[in-house]
Amino acid sequence: MADEPEVAVARTHEDADSARALLERLHDPARVLALSDGVFAIIITLLVLEIHVPELTQGHSLNEALAEVRPSLTAFVISFVLAGMYWVGHRDLFALIRRTDRGLVWLNILYLLPLCLLPFAAGLLGRYDTEPVALRIYGLNLVAIAVMRVVIWLYATNRPHLLWQRLDDRQRRAGLALNLYPGLVYLLAFLVARTAPGVSLLIYAAMPLLYFASITVLRSGRTRNQEYADFT
Amino acid sequence: MADEPEVAVARTHEDADSARALLERLHDPARVLALSDGVFAIIITLLVLEIHVPELTQGHSLNEALAEVRPSLTAFVISFVLAGMYWVGHRDLFALIRRTDRGLVWLNILYLLPLCLLPFAAGLLGRYDTEPVALRIYGLNLVAIAVMRVVIWLYATNRPHLLWQRLDDRQRRAGLALNLYPGLVYLLAFLVARTAPGVSLLIYAAMPLLYFASITVLRSGRTRNQEYADFT
Amino acid sequence: MADEPEVAVARTHEDADSARALLERLHDPARVLALSDGVFAIIITLLVLEIHVPELTQGHSLNEALAEVRPSLTAFVISFVLAGMYWVGHRDLFALIRRTDRGLVWLNILYLLPLCLLPFAAGLLGRYDTEPVALRIYGLNLVAIAVMRVVIWLYATNRPHLLWQRLDDRQRRAGLALNLYPGLVYLLAFLVARTAPGVSLLIYAAMPLLYFASITVLRSGRTRNQEYADFT
Amino acid sequence: MADEPEVAVARTHEDADSARALLERLHDPARVLALSDGVFAIIITLLVLEIHVPELTQGHSLNEALAEVRPSLTAFVISFVLAGMYWVGHRDLFALIRRTDRGLVWLNILYLLPLCLLPFAAGLLGRYDTEPVALRIYGLNLVAIAVMRVVIWLYATNRPHLLWQRLDDRQRRAGLALNLYPGLVYLLAFLVARTAPGVSLLIYAAMPLLYFASITVLRSGRTRNQEYADFT
Repeated sequence: MADEPEVAVARTHEDADSARALLERLHDPARVLALSDGVFAIIITLLVLEIHVPELTQGHSLNEALAEVRPSLTAFVISFVLAGMYWVGHRDLFALIRRTDRGLVWLNILYLLPLCLLPFAAGLLGRYDTEPVALRIYGLNLVAIAVMRVVIWLYATNRPHLLWQRLDDRQRRAGLALNLYPGLVYLLAFLVARTAPGVSLLIYAAMPLLYFASITVLRSGRTRNQEYADFT
Repeated sequence: MADEPEVAVARTHEDADSARALLERLHDPARVLALSDGVFAIIITLLVLEIHVPELTQGHSLNEALAEVRPSLTAFVISFVLAGMYWVGHRDLFALIRRTDRGLVWLNILYLLPLCLLPFAAGLLGRYDTEPVALRIYGLNLVAIAVMRVVIWLYATNRPHLLWQRLDDRQRRAGLALNLYPGLVYLLAFLVARTAPGVSLLIYAAMPLLYFASITVLRSGRTRNQEYADFT
Repeated sequence: MADEPEVAVARTHEDADSARALLERLHDPARVLALSDGVFAIIITLLVLEIHVPELTQGHSLNEALAEVRPSLTAFVISFVLAGMYWVGHRDLFALIRRTDRGLVWLNILYLLPLCLLPFAAGLLGRYDTEPVALRIYGLNLVAIAVMRVVIWLYATNRPHLLWQRLDDRQRRAGLALNLYPGLVYLLAFLVARTAPGVSLLIYAAMPLLYFASITVLRSGRTRNQEYADFT
Repeated sequence: MADEPEVAVARTHEDADSARALLERLHDPARVLALSDGVFAIIITLLVLEIHVPELTQGHSLNEALAEVRPSLTAFVISFVLAGMYWVGHRDLFALIRRTDRGLVWLNILYLLPLCLLPFAAGLLGRYDTEPVALRIYGLNLVAIAVMRVVIWLYATNRPHLLWQRLDDRQRRAGLALNLYPGLVYLLAFLVARTAPGVSLLIYAAMPLLYFASITVLRSGRTRNQEYADFT
């Protein structure tokens, strides 16, 4: 009537095995990366849709019309390079991550949310590149992205079972600084947008350069630590 | 003239082997997941296209124009989080699925159909957020998605050869409830849209919160069952 | 001064090995499938962009405006299911294919070309669903897709070294018929569009049903052959 | 109190191992290819968005309206085939690449930047196909893509540790020529656009044919070298 004890044990082991296998599949980052790469690919290509083919009307040369396109093109290039930086950062972070739990999956989705708004904010900036409100919205969008990056960094690095290898405190602080740093600069650009719109636009344009420069400084100061250098 | 019997047998075995290998490739879920992740990635990014950069006309400040954008932005955030929930649900379901037969492949495509309409319904809601018809169309779209989720759940869990491991009845009922539950709430939002459009909009906005809350309740009530907790 | 003969031989073997490994990577279908799945995912989601959120003008109820959307929605559903059929066919074909040579890579790109025009043709049909010219352009687009499917089928099945297993003549003819059959029906819809636009539209709408019916007939007639049944 | 020496050694080895494993994950080209394939898939499908469904106004037949679409369609086909060529070239290049370092990751992103502008340039060309400025912008875009291809080729082939196998000088020169050659022709098309716009358009249209012809010539001249033939 009842199962033999050995069979019961075997069944329990099997159940435990298949439960563990299910957990592994639920924690597999593969689809999280597929969704994220898809979103990044779409965002950097959607950015171009905000560059509208100029209309040629009476006595309006194509050359002049293209001059109107210039702000859109500038917003495109800035936003493209920023999105590239975010993708490189995402790739570097997930090179550390072995498993994704439900919290990390949702934090990643909530990170993609402000990222998906980037084409809108870039379109706004491309159209009204001297308007403080456009500059402030662009800044808010970048601050929101930076906040989510910091949250994901703290969440993941606080949970060693999600990582391939535990990070030491110096590595965690360095990664935190790298994720926090741009957010603070964007916050500054947001704050000065009303009084000095030109400075604000300059910060957005210069940010990729500042970022690369800061990475170079951080790297050269810690050449002993090869792993750290590869985060940046 | 004729093949030796042994050779014939060997050929048959080989044929059987290659037929089995073909079947395995035809049942491999990899491309089903690639298509689905691509569609999800595009949908959540296309949603932003419905947020139009506002036009600045005579005596119309950018700030006022942005106030017009607010309904679009609300519709974007709601739809984004809903699409995120659907993707998480899809990922959880396919963590159970080992093979996809022709029926499951087509059910998945027919699930993606109402999902692809989400940017349209969200655009409509973002533009006419107090119009009962817009609220009802949005509700119908969400009900259609919920119906397809229930159909796929029943189809897949009724076919143990498609699964990594057979689910017991309690697990099947729990999964069914989780897929059915939001559909019923959306049906309610659809039904009250004509008489109480505000309530309808509130339901759409509150749904993600309700869903997370209900999952927490379901989880805490069944902490013994680790697997079940991971479905939710 | 010169290499030892053994070393020279070893180097040659190594070179041959790495040349073979390079060939394997060049013939790997992985990226062909990644590109194709991406294109399919985008096409079925872009189709929704042709359903424009209706404008509400003076004395024009939302309900009436939505009636205008109906042709777009019909064109969306027809095109979505057609694109789904093409994707399933593509997946079935590439389940047979082990290696892709340069010819197959380019034929696949030239197959994606008319496929990418589908959102345009569907948009045209959704807007002018009683205009013979719109119906004929839609038909031409579908005929072009069918022609490319036949060409790829003949190309791949004529080159056994590209396949996991050689197909026999009956299998090749059956696959050819399945790829040719819809093309001929679309050609008919194209030809009658001028004299009987209603019939033409009906054919496009009924085609998925005809296709599923024909598959069922073909399948039931050859139940002995499990492999064949799985192609359909 | 302190670790045993053996444990310390083991820990160091473990650390070295996990550092090496992290480096391998950071150098894995998988996500670079996922992002690139996504971008290519989106670009070739976005190109169709520039073909606008023509408006039917008073006394304006659909047939005439479609004649207006013809330039867009021509620009679509040219740009689609060009994008196809770029994707095939990208796939061939990355069949040689085993690891991606930070430089290569960023060069690939900066290669995707002008590529993402292709739908805009194609839209411009499709609208103003006889305007020298539109032809020149299209040419500049293609020259920028060609420059990035040459830079990536030189960067990757100069770093044997990034490759599956070291290329000899003849292979490197041949690959360089294949990447440089189209860039020079596009530069010519750009230069003659002002004086002979028809010639410029003809070059863009003929380029894919020229390219295929030149590959055939290069191939037939070096049939001894199977590997080389497969690059082209």
